[in-house]
Amino acid sequence: MRILVVGASGTIGQRITEGIASNHEVLRAGRNGADVSVDLTSPKSIAGMYEKVGYVDAVVNASGGANFKAVPELTPELNEKGIESKLKGQVNLVLLGQEYVNDGGSFTLTTGVMMDDPIPMGASAAMANGGVKAFVKASSIEMPRGIRINSVSPNIVKESWERIGHLFAGFNPVPAERVARAYIKSVEGAQTGQNYNVY
Amino acid sequence: MRILVVGASGTIGQRITEGIASNHEVLRAGRNGADVSVDLTSPKSIAGMYEKVGYVDAVVNASGGANFKAVPELTPELNEKGIESKLKGQVNLVLLGQEYVNDGGSFTLTTGVMMDDPIPMGASAAMANGGVKAFVKASSIEMPRGIRINSVSPNIVKESWERIGHLFAGFNPVPAERVARAYIKSVEGAQTGQNYNVY
Repeated sequence: MRILVVGASGTIGQRITEGIASNHEVLRAGRNGADVSVDLTSPKSIAGMYEKVGYVDAVVNASGGANFKAVPELTPELNEKGIESKLKGQVNLVLLGQEYVNDGGSFTLTTGVMMDDPIPMGASAAMANGGVKAFVKASSIEMPRGIRINSVSPNIVKESWERIGHLFAGFNPVPAERVARAYIKSVEGAQTGQNYNVY
Repeated sequence: MRILVVGASGTIGQRITEGIASNHEVLRAGRNGADVSVDLTSPKSIAGMYEKVGYVDAVVNASGGANFKAVPELTPELNEKGIESKLKGQVNLVLLGQEYVNDGGSFTLTTGVMMDDPIPMGASAAMANGGVKAFVKASSIEMPRGIRINSVSPNIVKESWERIGHLFAGFNPVPAERVARAYIKSVEGAQTGQNYNVY
């Protein structure tokens, strides 16, 4: 398969790429992507990426951000990062990319554990994650030409524990390599409309 | 209690208002609200509404829209209504309203059945609903001064069946009056972080 991985240089994106590179053609995208650069917050940039890359069999996204702020300090302005990047960025990857994905291909997006198991300062990220999860489930019933769509909800990963583990008190971090397997299940498997919790 | 109902003139908003008017002070808001007008897509308009209304014990929202389009026809532009109105409109009601809600007060937002039970053309609305549900759950752990927050997820209501029932094949419509009771449970009860499914 020809697989476009957005966020390929991130902690999880790297493990996904390692897991599929031996038996698939991988195109690495990201803000400074090795093969193609893309800014998820810009529909124009997303459209430009697809024009450059052309037809693919799978699109995997392991990128997208949100601001971490406690609700009393969260403003509409600070909430915009989660809206524009993690939520709209991922939805627009699908809306603008559906014509570039071959028959029977797939999209795999990223949600995250804080939508199910809230953490301090996680409301904006949770909002974006919940939106993506519901979009995946709802859109799966009318994707064109047998295209499948799933999302992966990673727990905090071991590789990020030192940096952000203080936000995840009592959580049991999982190896990024285990998270990557859920993306591979989505790409190489046959399910659609699923959100794979890797908790 | 002093209760601000946004979307008070809608099918569900009317039933909520009827259910609480006899033992609470109700302030009716909406695009052409009887007591105060508000445009949910404008943070400035939301802030202006709160300035005009002042302190309240509960904020209930029964408004917010999204475009209904099949995924192959859904564009980033058409998806904006769901983002700006049903998702950001409701989140901003909380972010901008938290300082106007008295200690121990509450917010009650609206999601909808299509996030759990997908319907054709419902992906954008489902996205917004899923975002609101996750925001409610995540934000409930750090709302200030004991303020509670819940959402209600209505099924298609009997009163809307003739107009939009064709989108809900095989669904079992519920009376709007039954949906209204879930809002009253949120306002007069003691739970927080819940999404009440009225299916």
